[in-house]
Amino acid sequence: MDRLWGKAFKQHPTKEVIEFMAGRDVKGCKAADENLIEFDIWGTKAHVIMLWKQNIISREDVKVILKGLNEIQNLWKLGRFNLDPEREDVHTNIESFIIERYGIEYGGKIHTARSRNDQVVLDMRLYLREEALQLVDATIDLVECILEKASENLEVVMPGFTHHQHAMLTTFSHVLSSFAVAIKRDILRYRGWYNLFNRCPLGGVSSYSTTFPIDRELTSHMLGFDGPEPNSIDPITNRWEPETEMAFILSMAMNHLSTIAQTLILLSTTEFNMVELADQYKTGSSIMPQKKNPCSMEVIKAKAALSHGLLMSLLSIGKSNMIGYNRDTQWTKYLIMDLVRECKPSLHILKGVIETLQVKKERMYEQCNRGFITATSLLESIVQDCNLPFREAKFLIEEAVRYSEIEGSEKVTFSSLRKALKEKGIDISITQKQVDEYQDPMQIINRKRTLGGPSQDAVSLSIQTIREDLRRDKEWLEQKRKMIDEAKGRIKDIEESLNI
Amino acid sequence: MDRLWGKAFKQHPTKEVIEFMAGRDVKGCKAADENLIEFDIWGTKAHVIMLWKQNIISREDVKVILKGLNEIQNLWKLGRFNLDPEREDVHTNIESFIIERYGIEYGGKIHTARSRNDQVVLDMRLYLREEALQLVDATIDLVECILEKASENLEVVMPGFTHHQHAMLTTFSHVLSSFAVAIKRDILRYRGWYNLFNRCPLGGVSSYSTTFPIDRELTSHMLGFDGPEPNSIDPITNRWEPETEMAFILSMAMNHLSTIAQTLILLSTTEFNMVELADQYKTGSSIMPQKKNPCSMEVIKAKAALSHGLLMSLLSIGKSNMIGYNRDTQWTKYLIMDLVRECKPSLHILKGVIETLQVKKERMYEQCNRGFITATSLLESIVQDCNLPFREAKFLIEEAVRYSEIEGSEKVTFSSLRKALKEKGIDISITQKQVDEYQDPMQIINRKRTLGGPSQDAVSLSIQTIREDLRRDKEWLEQKRKMIDEAKGRIKDIEESLNI
Amino acid sequence: MDRLWGKAFKQHPTKEVIEFMAGRDVKGCKAADENLIEFDIWGTKAHVIMLWKQNIISREDVKVILKGLNEIQNLWKLGRFNLDPEREDVHTNIESFIIERYGIEYGGKIHTARSRNDQVVLDMRLYLREEALQLVDATIDLVECILEKASENLEVVMPGFTHHQHAMLTTFSHVLSSFAVAIKRDILRYRGWYNLFNRCPLGGVSSYSTTFPIDRELTSHMLGFDGPEPNSIDPITNRWEPETEMAFILSMAMNHLSTIAQTLILLSTTEFNMVELADQYKTGSSIMPQKKNPCSMEVIKAKAALSHGLLMSLLSIGKSNMIGYNRDTQWTKYLIMDLVRECKPSLHILKGVIETLQVKKERMYEQCNRGFITATSLLESIVQDCNLPFREAKFLIEEAVRYSEIEGSEKVTFSSLRKALKEKGIDISITQKQVDEYQDPMQIINRKRTLGGPSQDAVSLSIQTIREDLRRDKEWLEQKRKMIDEAKGRIKDIEESLNI
Amino acid sequence: MDRLWGKAFKQHPTKEVIEFMAGRDVKGCKAADENLIEFDIWGTKAHVIMLWKQNIISREDVKVILKGLNEIQNLWKLGRFNLDPEREDVHTNIESFIIERYGIEYGGKIHTARSRNDQVVLDMRLYLREEALQLVDATIDLVECILEKASENLEVVMPGFTHHQHAMLTTFSHVLSSFAVAIKRDILRYRGWYNLFNRCPLGGVSSYSTTFPIDRELTSHMLGFDGPEPNSIDPITNRWEPETEMAFILSMAMNHLSTIAQTLILLSTTEFNMVELADQYKTGSSIMPQKKNPCSMEVIKAKAALSHGLLMSLLSIGKSNMIGYNRDTQWTKYLIMDLVRECKPSLHILKGVIETLQVKKERMYEQCNRGFITATSLLESIVQDCNLPFREAKFLIEEAVRYSEIEGSEKVTFSSLRKALKEKGIDISITQKQVDEYQDPMQIINRKRTLGGPSQDAVSLSIQTIREDLRRDKEWLEQKRKMIDEAKGRIKDIEESLNI
Repeated sequence: MDRLWGKAFKQHPTKEVIEFMAGRDVKGCKAADENLIEFDIWGTKAHVIMLWKQNIISREDVKVILKGLNEIQNLWKLGRFNLDPEREDVHTNIESFIIERYGIEYGGKIHTARSRNDQVVLDMRLYLREEALQLVDATIDLVECILEKASENLEVVMPGFTHHQHAMLTTFSHVLSSFAVAIKRDILRYRGWYNLFNRCPLGGVSSYSTTFPIDRELTSHMLGFDGPEPNSIDPITNRWEPETEMAFILSMAMNHLSTIAQTLILLSTTEFNMVELADQYKTGSSIMPQKKNPCSMEVIKAKAALSHGLLMSLLSIGKSNMIGYNRDTQWTKYLIMDLVRECKPSLHILKGVIETLQVKKERMYEQCNRGFITATSLLESIVQDCNLPFREAKFLIEEAVRYSEIEGSEKVTFSSLRKALKEKGIDISITQKQVDEYQDPMQIINRKRTLGGPSQDAVSLSIQTIREDLRRDKEWLEQKRKMIDEAKGRIKDIEESLNI
Repeated sequence: MDRLWGKAFKQHPTKEVIEFMAGRDVKGCKAADENLIEFDIWGTKAHVIMLWKQNIISREDVKVILKGLNEIQNLWKLGRFNLDPEREDVHTNIESFIIERYGIEYGGKIHTARSRNDQVVLDMRLYLREEALQLVDATIDLVECILEKASENLEVVMPGFTHHQHAMLTTFSHVLSSFAVAIKRDILRYRGWYNLFNRCPLGGVSSYSTTFPIDRELTSHMLGFDGPEPNSIDPITNRWEPETEMAFILSMAMNHLSTIAQTLILLSTTEFNMVELADQYKTGSSIMPQKKNPCSMEVIKAKAALSHGLLMSLLSIGKSNMIGYNRDTQWTKYLIMDLVRECKPSLHILKGVIETLQVKKERMYEQCNRGFITATSLLESIVQDCNLPFREAKFLIEEAVRYSEIEGSEKVTFSSLRKALKEKGIDISITQKQVDEYQDPMQIINRKRTLGGPSQDAVSLSIQTIREDLRRDKEWLEQKRKMIDEAKGRIKDIEESLNI
Repeated sequence: MDRLWGKAFKQHPTKEVIEFMAGRDVKGCKAADENLIEFDIWGTKAHVIMLWKQNIISREDVKVILKGLNEIQNLWKLGRFNLDPEREDVHTNIESFIIERYGIEYGGKIHTARSRNDQVVLDMRLYLREEALQLVDATIDLVECILEKASENLEVVMPGFTHHQHAMLTTFSHVLSSFAVAIKRDILRYRGWYNLFNRCPLGGVSSYSTTFPIDRELTSHMLGFDGPEPNSIDPITNRWEPETEMAFILSMAMNHLSTIAQTLILLSTTEFNMVELADQYKTGSSIMPQKKNPCSMEVIKAKAALSHGLLMSLLSIGKSNMIGYNRDTQWTKYLIMDLVRECKPSLHILKGVIETLQVKKERMYEQCNRGFITATSLLESIVQDCNLPFREAKFLIEEAVRYSEIEGSEKVTFSSLRKALKEKGIDISITQKQVDEYQDPMQIINRKRTLGGPSQDAVSLSIQTIREDLRRDKEWLEQKRKMIDEAKGRIKDIEESLNI
Repeated sequence: MDRLWGKAFKQHPTKEVIEFMAGRDVKGCKAADENLIEFDIWGTKAHVIMLWKQNIISREDVKVILKGLNEIQNLWKLGRFNLDPEREDVHTNIESFIIERYGIEYGGKIHTARSRNDQVVLDMRLYLREEALQLVDATIDLVECILEKASENLEVVMPGFTHHQHAMLTTFSHVLSSFAVAIKRDILRYRGWYNLFNRCPLGGVSSYSTTFPIDRELTSHMLGFDGPEPNSIDPITNRWEPETEMAFILSMAMNHLSTIAQTLILLSTTEFNMVELADQYKTGSSIMPQKKNPCSMEVIKAKAALSHGLLMSLLSIGKSNMIGYNRDTQWTKYLIMDLVRECKPSLHILKGVIETLQVKKERMYEQCNRGFITATSLLESIVQDCNLPFREAKFLIEEAVRYSEIEGSEKVTFSSLRKALKEKGIDISITQKQVDEYQDPMQIINRKRTLGGPSQDAVSLSIQTIREDLRRDKEWLEQKRKMIDEAKGRIKDIEESLNI
């Protein structure tokens, strides 16, 4: 018996969803530096090749070290290179391995002209860059899925809410595309991160450069950066900065996701009953037989809260420091790694939720005639037809609403409108038919044709525009991937030329 | 080679210190529910005993279940009860174990009249209560150590700083006892936590109670609580609250520790050179041979930043919810467990740092004659002797300082004072000797006899008072421990009476 | 025309409510030190009386200064003592006033043996203490109002929610008393604040005490404190601490209020339709005639968010400082004053909302038969009657729910239960009547008699207990008020004895 | 007497600096909507012109309304248009003014086809856009000033610190340019903000568009936006987003400034004594005659803490909302306005501090021979000259440091190096002269020629590069200003064509 619930479920959560919801209850986290092994090896390769090209170490030195690094990489892929907790960090583990295996005369040269201070900044940038690209990828996927769902629901009229109350009519498609527009901004933020931080810090050494004649352009080139950082102190004093920027982007993204989550949670209550999440994104109760809870959406909200706090910690670590490296910044590593690990899966989960979401069109339409949600459109039509000043017409309809309410109606009735007109001494000609038509949901939606509005045409156009933007984001992503692959290729070429 | 540094170190960091500084670089975190196993078993025992006493389950039922729970406990102690990630959480793991081992006719009764909603709130309170007591214990230890160091340094005169600038004289003992007073407040906060939250939530079930005739007083009694929670909904809606309160207390405590850390970091710079941390609390550099960095103190600062953020996430999870259980609160578990795990060791580390701290009395004294730090005491003496209004005397000495500065002195000179007096047309009789004596460090300290001041007598008295307070805290701690042990004893007695 | 809406409103918001919702749109904030004038005067009086009693200034000195201070107080009450921005702060304004009016020979003595560093800490404690007592007062009022409403709604059955979904039945009274229990904890937190910080910092001077022979017990006594702070440095290094503790308490309180607010917002949507806020706590729209928005409740949520952030800033200011005064802490003044000003009115507003809240009993009852909310109670009854293991019965009812759903029912039907029983091969005797009764809302509530549950008796008992606790809080409040009044009386007596 | 200190000051703080440090002690804040009056008028002008162009209102309507708006603008400039607190907000104040002055037949049309929901989002974007440009301007100024100071201090050698301890040598110029590089990133962030949010939300109305045939491209064009927002709901649901992004940028900027502030605070202590702030950026004490406190720098640190918290509140308001407008977001207005008001002046203050900063070159140089700060360069030279593996050489010099320390030296001595060599059995030829030269500060700096390093050439090159980047930022700023001016011009042209 793996779960205390589920007999009433049509589909069961997948392993991915179960893990998403179980959080860290029954699963721990690995050592942070596990995430850095591959990047530390890559950075070290670029570094020692440069040392050789600059004649700081010999051709034989570089050959032995590269061979050793490849050995570690292979062991690691086989799960046989484990970080030894006796050896402080990934950097020490790797250097020690080479020294023990090939002697200090080779391994002892690996750290020439660098320090762990610049090395870890490098590793973190490589790690964050990779995560940024993966996040862009997953975000594009989510936006596309939302747009797809939006284009399937162009005609689904529903109440639009403000203050959680019925405001004016909209369509589910219009709501979905508002989500897409918001999330698309997150992609631009990741791109902004990339532009700010795809710069190579290697060569900063302790913080204060070195007397070795190193070539920072070369290492930068072999690591896929847009160029070296222009000052050796800054990336180390501000080691917290790329991490914090990423945490901010994730916070913004999670806020967007949390609002989608909360909207879906509310729309899927017994009372709203406008959408239903697929069973595989819900969980049951250990005691209540009927329960199907939108836990996946609640977890997203929790992760939004998490992101804000971790951002705060990162900002706090970056405040009021003295120049140069400070150990406080080591904790930025755990903060951002935790955050990425927690947030990244949310994009795919939400994508699944939206793809499988059941939209209850009839219930939505039914609610379009409640709570005087069509009164404003009636008001707008009267202003347009009868040349009443808007404010006067607003006060008029307010009275009509009050009278209609007394009549027990949830739309403005013809009789109450007439009563209000008479009371105000306003003389306009309007018929019962007009009053009805002006409050007809489909007609209202069709008239909301303006750019950004909910009519079918307007939303279709908007979806098209967002898709075009997305195409540009995809090109950007591809181009960045290519640049990184080329950098990796450069090292591979050199290794081949050295017969490794 | 375990470390890239250390040949210049007199003592090497202990395993505890290494771990403290290496953070999560080379060490992961275990699953959160590992921390709850023992508490979940305890809570379940109390629950099933109550069910039996209330005739909801039979004597045989309770025997089998208790036996099964003891089996799990033993396996777990032997490291052989592992949480299965396929089974959502600790609760499911335990219930499933019993069902599989002893059949659903026994194990299937374990969850009668409770829900995971009240169960996890219970587990967390038991966990947090235990941590609170351990934190009180470690905090008392730290305060005692600081007081001990303070009583060893009663005569060590040093500059007191405001705005990082020389202000007035103090003693190192006075400074240390200011730390003790601050940290002692944290103990009172833990005690406040205990009073608010040592209440049993069990019996709240899903959030809305049960039709089973349970006895909540009885379970509360067997779990060492001060009584059951008076409303079934509140502890579940506000599941985030004990966690958040604890995070706040830890934030305050870490702020206190961070200020001690920062003060020690500054006092131990090459420039201040007033204290020196023992080598075992420092680390070296991977490249700079001379380096001995106060990393342990920087890590404490990082953890203070961490605590603020995690508190923020907890508060955010607790904001604007609908009544009843919400899955968002599951993440409060990880937040507070991370925080406790990160912060708790700081108390013992700081204790070690202070115990082994080298105080450079001569350097401290030397700096007591710099930067006109004695000018205010001169001013005070003139006011007392000569009946000058304080404000007038203040302006006078300001001028004297300015003239003395021109003379190249860092104390007020007799000549500059006379010049200022003349200029201001003030006629008081003061001698060279007086001017010197009024600026003599030892004499100044001796005259600061008022309650809370730095003279030997005043600090001694203050230390004595704090120690008396601490004695009361220790008694409280002992009493709470006893109450918990008695509760555990009650269950053991029943088990014995059932021949388990 | 003052508002763009309102013709449809039965009652209009009061001035208090309008101000609450308009926030700072059309109203600025006064200078922070305006809040400190009365406390600075009080503190200064106590200080100069002590100086006289200790023979540091003369009887004539103290008379002139006290006279001057009374003059300022009178001018201020008449709105004619304005803080001059040329004069840094309230302390400088007051000292300068006395000097200019009565000469430096009197006014110049006012600052003897104190510094602005201890003075402002004193002022802030006096200010915060007064606010703490007012907050306790308003919180008691709110709890009493909630309990009153709870006792009026003992029989009002409604759905209880978890995950925003129907869980099990409860009563509105049960929900309200869960709010009362939570808010009552806030009162204990204010009391904790009082115990920690009702200590007199005066005499700490710059941070490092003084050579003047001052009597700190005396000033403490004249200011209503429980005694002087035991170390002169601590209250100044940690000037941020009472402010931060208060901000934390307000954050917890606002979280409680925000959850009430959110619950009321949801229950009052068109879809839930279970409660309705009185019109005077809503606002209209500038264009939508039907709109009545629960803005007062949304503002409370905003203020909860505000409180978290300001708490964060305060904690950040308190992190990693060097000992002694640092100017950074000046900003804690604005942070806490803003927070108190923003949060305090929320208590009275919410009280009004609850007092005037319309409870839609019929709608609540109607929803008690939806979404299988009674299934768990059926399950519990079957377990009790038929001796089925809970887990087995749970799986059974899950199946029955699934079959009933197919039948289009929102309760478990007799036929579907039988089908499930048969399928599982379970043989228990249960009748149609039992199935109906076990799912009857009133019967279910009546059976939830356990401590903390929703039955009338259980909630009545719980209300009674909370009221008794409240009585103790009121006594505490009264006693503290008395202690403060007596301290003020002491100064008044001395003034009279000096013929001022 | 305006201040309680200052006789020892060479220059007194200017009014700007006094205000910066006095904070809100003696100065309140104005109503938030005061900041929006000009933007609300501008937006309304564009809106009514569009209504006219679309034949929704008449030529006469638009003429009267524009006249009325200009009247308000003039009154406001003369300080005679005051926001009436009885009238909720700036929008109501303006509409009411026109209605009362020109009749509802004109003023009542002003709000046709818009809502306060889209109107306030518009106003805030116009306000934030203006602030963003001003912040870019002030940030450019600050960077230029830092670069200027850097170019004046190219030869000033000083200790570089890591962990607050002596690490390796650097120059003050190198440090300053690290500050410039960091702050320059903030400019790119403001530019990113501009790209994301210079989009016109007008026309979104309540959140759900309108049936009026409005032209959103036209209003966008007259308001200087890059185009209309593509979805009417998104900018209103996410009203918090441009505010939060701005708060994040300010948090990052303030972190950069706080680190400069903290570094200057430390370097200007009596103990470090490496720089001195000009007297006009310091304040004195009310009692300590010698005191000159770096308060301006501490205030910057406080404001960094403030920014983090306000960011947090903003993020919290943006979490887990339902779609559409929610009143909670009104508080984002105060949060961001407070933050901008608090942070903006910091840039100019810091500029002044750096311009007038006294650099104590001799003291800096003196400290370059302490704490074995040159040991790493010696190590590097030995590796280069003697072909020792770096790690081996590192261990060697560690020993040499230990021996030198025993000798009482703060540089590596020739004898101790020889002792270490012997002990390790390493045979390299090195002379006393080499050991001295390799530890000579000037020689070391000259050898740190690599890109981003501290040698004169390297720093000069770096300064040049940053200046070129800055030129591009200035061009961007100019172009944006021009675009906005042109938009304003369009409205002016129309007004002229209407003879207003």
